[in-house]
Amino acid sequence: MFRFHIRIVLAFFAALLAGTVANAETLTETSPDGQITLTVSDDGGMARYALAYRGEAAIAPSQLGLLFRDHHGFDGHLAIAGSTRAASDSTWEQPWGERRVMRDNHRELAVTFAASEGPARSMTVRFRLFDDGVGFRYELQEQDALKGEVNVMEELTQFAVGEDTQAWWIPSGLFNRYEYIYRNGPASEVETAHTPITFRKASGVHFSIHEAALVDYSAMSLQQQRPGTLKARLSPRSDGALVQTTAPFHTPWRTIQIAPDAKGLINSGLILNLNEPNALGDVSWVEPGKYVGIWWAMHINERSWGHDGIHGATTEETKRYIDFAAEHGFNGVLVEGWNVGWDGDWYYNGALFRFAEAFPDFDLAELGAYAQSKGVRIIGHHETSGNITNYENQMEAAFDLYQKNGVATVKTGYVADAGRIARIDENGVPRYEWHDGQIMVDHHLRVVREAAKRHIAINPHEPVKDTGLRRTYPNWVSREGARGMEYNAWGSPPNPPSHEATLAFTRMLSGPMDFTPGIFDLRHNSRPPVRADIPRHDPENFAQTTLAKQLALYVVLYSPIQMAADLPENYAKRMDAFQFIKDVPTDWEESVALDGAVGEFVAIARKKRGSDEWFLGALTDENPRALTLKLDFLDPGRRYVAQVYRDGDKADWQTNPYDMAIYEQRVRAGETLTLPLASSGGAAIRFVPVGD
Amino acid sequence: MFRFHIRIVLAFFAALLAGTVANAETLTETSPDGQITLTVSDDGGMARYALAYRGEAAIAPSQLGLLFRDHHGFDGHLAIAGSTRAASDSTWEQPWGERRVMRDNHRELAVTFAASEGPARSMTVRFRLFDDGVGFRYELQEQDALKGEVNVMEELTQFAVGEDTQAWWIPSGLFNRYEYIYRNGPASEVETAHTPITFRKASGVHFSIHEAALVDYSAMSLQQQRPGTLKARLSPRSDGALVQTTAPFHTPWRTIQIAPDAKGLINSGLILNLNEPNALGDVSWVEPGKYVGIWWAMHINERSWGHDGIHGATTEETKRYIDFAAEHGFNGVLVEGWNVGWDGDWYYNGALFRFAEAFPDFDLAELGAYAQSKGVRIIGHHETSGNITNYENQMEAAFDLYQKNGVATVKTGYVADAGRIARIDENGVPRYEWHDGQIMVDHHLRVVREAAKRHIAINPHEPVKDTGLRRTYPNWVSREGARGMEYNAWGSPPNPPSHEATLAFTRMLSGPMDFTPGIFDLRHNSRPPVRADIPRHDPENFAQTTLAKQLALYVVLYSPIQMAADLPENYAKRMDAFQFIKDVPTDWEESVALDGAVGEFVAIARKKRGSDEWFLGALTDENPRALTLKLDFLDPGRRYVAQVYRDGDKADWQTNPYDMAIYEQRVRAGETLTLPLASSGGAAIRFVPVGD
Repeated sequence: MFRFHIRIVLAFFAALLAGTVANAETLTETSPDGQITLTVSDDGGMARYALAYRGEAAIAPSQLGLLFRDHHGFDGHLAIAGSTRAASDSTWEQPWGERRVMRDNHRELAVTFAASEGPARSMTVRFRLFDDGVGFRYELQEQDALKGEVNVMEELTQFAVGEDTQAWWIPSGLFNRYEYIYRNGPASEVETAHTPITFRKASGVHFSIHEAALVDYSAMSLQQQRPGTLKARLSPRSDGALVQTTAPFHTPWRTIQIAPDAKGLINSGLILNLNEPNALGDVSWVEPGKYVGIWWAMHINERSWGHDGIHGATTEETKRYIDFAAEHGFNGVLVEGWNVGWDGDWYYNGALFRFAEAFPDFDLAELGAYAQSKGVRIIGHHETSGNITNYENQMEAAFDLYQKNGVATVKTGYVADAGRIARIDENGVPRYEWHDGQIMVDHHLRVVREAAKRHIAINPHEPVKDTGLRRTYPNWVSREGARGMEYNAWGSPPNPPSHEATLAFTRMLSGPMDFTPGIFDLRHNSRPPVRADIPRHDPENFAQTTLAKQLALYVVLYSPIQMAADLPENYAKRMDAFQFIKDVPTDWEESVALDGAVGEFVAIARKKRGSDEWFLGALTDENPRALTLKLDFLDPGRRYVAQVYRDGDKADWQTNPYDMAIYEQRVRAGETLTLPLASSGGAAIRFVPVGD
Repeated sequence: MFRFHIRIVLAFFAALLAGTVANAETLTETSPDGQITLTVSDDGGMARYALAYRGEAAIAPSQLGLLFRDHHGFDGHLAIAGSTRAASDSTWEQPWGERRVMRDNHRELAVTFAASEGPARSMTVRFRLFDDGVGFRYELQEQDALKGEVNVMEELTQFAVGEDTQAWWIPSGLFNRYEYIYRNGPASEVETAHTPITFRKASGVHFSIHEAALVDYSAMSLQQQRPGTLKARLSPRSDGALVQTTAPFHTPWRTIQIAPDAKGLINSGLILNLNEPNALGDVSWVEPGKYVGIWWAMHINERSWGHDGIHGATTEETKRYIDFAAEHGFNGVLVEGWNVGWDGDWYYNGALFRFAEAFPDFDLAELGAYAQSKGVRIIGHHETSGNITNYENQMEAAFDLYQKNGVATVKTGYVADAGRIARIDENGVPRYEWHDGQIMVDHHLRVVREAAKRHIAINPHEPVKDTGLRRTYPNWVSREGARGMEYNAWGSPPNPPSHEATLAFTRMLSGPMDFTPGIFDLRHNSRPPVRADIPRHDPENFAQTTLAKQLALYVVLYSPIQMAADLPENYAKRMDAFQFIKDVPTDWEESVALDGAVGEFVAIARKKRGSDEWFLGALTDENPRALTLKLDFLDPGRRYVAQVYRDGDKADWQTNPYDMAIYEQRVRAGETLTLPLASSGGAAIRFVPVGD
């Protein structure tokens, strides 16, 4: 029996909107530009908020609250007991990033709700309103009603986005976290979703829900509570609590980025603005750059991580990559599979890994010195297979070893089923955690801090999602956290043509991704197996793009470290196209999303840091299209030579992926440029200023 | 990075199947008829089981295990330490049911796994193999390693059903439990699922996963762990544990019913066979029967639960229903909305309800006596709005009152959002529980036992799912637990034409459902509103069936108590069709599913208990079809008059739902009968034996 529910709830919201409930208090605040309106109320004894953008509801009235295991929580019987307001407009600089100068212009409303039943207690919800969205967090002061260990058992935060609002999301709670093909449909079809989740209203307004500054808390995903209303869903700890803490504490910021169109979401700086400033001091030792590595060869079954006769990480092979890197201006060589453990059945047995012990055919000291002699550094690798106790026991020694050998970046790995991160607790009991629960949130930060002591940057794969902590810990340079290029090696299915055009408006809103672009042999499966007993993957397994789209990825998918993922010999065959990868930087003065539609196409321009050069990347899904772009991002009045790498007129990702037109063209700011993009094609452009 | 996973896991299973892992032990057992083969192993230190049916894998090797909060669990490092075998073949009788005599013929294999790491400990997995499927449960003995309070934090049970196996399911974890439209697709599309979940392999073999004898434990739903492999997902308690208990304890039976075709699942008795025998002694006071009531009028906005001028549960209106029931041979009249609480904003405020206090316009004593004077009983109603503390505080007095007034059946209700069952714990802290967590499993049984003391039967709506406990507590007569008829009053959307043809092979495998069939005014929305401020529901809200299909539901959807849900005045208009509802019994000697395909059509025959009459119900989805049924269920050599109620030749649920052919026809066992079913149509037949 259910109908009453609808009737009562509708009546309730009607009352809420009409403000007819006796004694209810309603507070409002707007963004600096007045476009976003926040409403906070205690109608009916519930803490609720709502957001409107340009007069249209973005988030309908939605509940706020927390429940605890052993303490009275904040659910009903709440009243607004006070509020404070503030405003701030400042700028700050990123040591590296998609733009150097960040503006943080916001208004703040902090609302304190007090409970009228049970023990005296209060919670404050602090809202920050920017022109590009809103963040809010719960702040719990020390108080008699929250003495001792506090176990958060539920976060009641709702996001009433509306049933018919279009959504792009990946489910939360399934196997191998975050690595899914994006789904698209009305919000009513969302069962569970990781964030960022991106929405489009019929009006064209876009918004995206995520979180910022996830520290010592569990990550928030979403679950549909009733059609069109999503509710916070925190990953539980293995002891069943969602979060274990003590008062005072505050939650991460729950964020809603809002823009009049899709590209506006990409241009938002809200997530970083809601993070704390750099806590590491001088971080000039964090070096953006490009790298190659012993990696793709394993994914396409030409080499292996272990000793089955085709071991990849040998001293000799690594030198070959170092030579290639040095010759072409890359500053890193990733080596996976060099340390003891890879020969065993390491899946579910992460304890096998010895992070400071090399296989006999690999000499780290020799290679570290050899690389540095050529201006290159080894990029280290720590695959934990999810056993974090084994890793933390060895972590300091392992980082020491890397530091000694000139390794400045380490890729970490947590290959394990969802909910199968293994640890031994303080009583010696084996426990299993989620990839994005509080235990792992804490672990990742411990790794980042330990690495920072040795001036090492961290790039976790199978990570916890990014929430902008690179601002506070700038050695947290990149991470995986979505389906990367590897899925084109062996994924079933591989990434569809719409994938990168979706990532740009979803996953990438959270921060840099180590996507590992740049595959030049687009049909790796057509080559004969290297050995009869190691077959190639399925015939469907190849990158579902044109070659030009591979180049576009370097601009579209921001990361301060970018891999050129293919084998040196494959680049050697196409040095004309490879030139763009050699030229494209990974650190930017400014970034401007020019145009796009979620899952369909995107065009982004970025200005190289410390230079007057601009770069542009554009790509499309399976639909060919001609993009007409206004070059008003270029410096006014200035002339440029545009070095264009675009799909050839007969290019098609399925039938003719290599057809590419490479040419130069003179342009100036304000002109328009038309780029024909093939089916799953792209374009990459370098703009070099020339004298007037 | 993910590919290694695939490679290693494949290698692992290959080794497992080949039996090449050193020292691994494998045990097998078969069903009595030899068609089902169970394999249990400890390969790789993991407890695993697999099921094959007629030589084809049904469940590929799947993990078994449990994890605890403060104790070492059972995950890896396990070895088979012993096993016992048994066999049993017996019969028992149901006091009421879909068949009287039940055969329990099974073999048993109990396997004890001991841990080789950490403290000495063991768990036993007891398997029972029937010809119609397999059940297994975990049994944990008292042991040093499980001292004190045991909090189950994970059940590792997997069901590797295969990616491409077709599945029919409802998601678990969303708003208002169990009340969803069924989904259908390959198992790889299942994100979460409640049980029963039903599968069809390409071979035509069907199987269904569920559980039996859910007592003092959390209900099991399923979650996809990797494509085609589902994992147990127990509803957590509000304190974060999945289950809180002490050793010794055992889990409910995890069940896999298997049959060569869809109808075989309906004919299975496995769920009941895995429950404990009747614990209540003489239960002749539990009376199957049919009822009418003050209910549908509220759902179609003609009456209301509260006092807004159209109150339904008045003394006068109830007498009208009692008179109608008595005249037409019904033994019950349900009355909802008679007790104090319905006038308030009771949603989220279940504490408003007073279960022993009537509204002034309702006289329970007078009506109880009036009903009994006519051979009818009031069916009581307890809507809790999910506040179980408020209910339990009043429950004994409320049942006392009902008993005093001749009420023999009580419908309980738990209208509350998922995860919003409210209670006050022993420390006075408000808590929120899931509908199917351990707290509610315990609550429901407490209600059933308390009611049994007063010879009252219980019919919960928004219940915990059925797991066959009616065998042990025969006063637990029915329940809701799926989308019932009410969704055709106001559901958005209403139940689709495939709904009942899906329920028969999914929800109904768990036990009786109080679906409340028999709507005769199939266009309730075309009538004018009773009052201008109370509009009718959306135009789409009407039963998506023909009238003949409404009759078929009484045979297809088994329940010992069946409602004739429509208003008396609507039955008065169609007394010819109503005759079938008057004739059809609700207690059966035997039931035989004759034919069907999940979500498409179903035909079931049942023999009236204590009679030689048979009844048949058949219904179809939106596709019209001619069903040819062999009448070999009838008693051999006997002649019958078949009273046929079937779709007329021009019937169609959308354009002509009332067209029905009602006629008599002579038949005998072994003959074939062809029934033309209209789009979303049906047929209902009463077979009355006649002299040879």
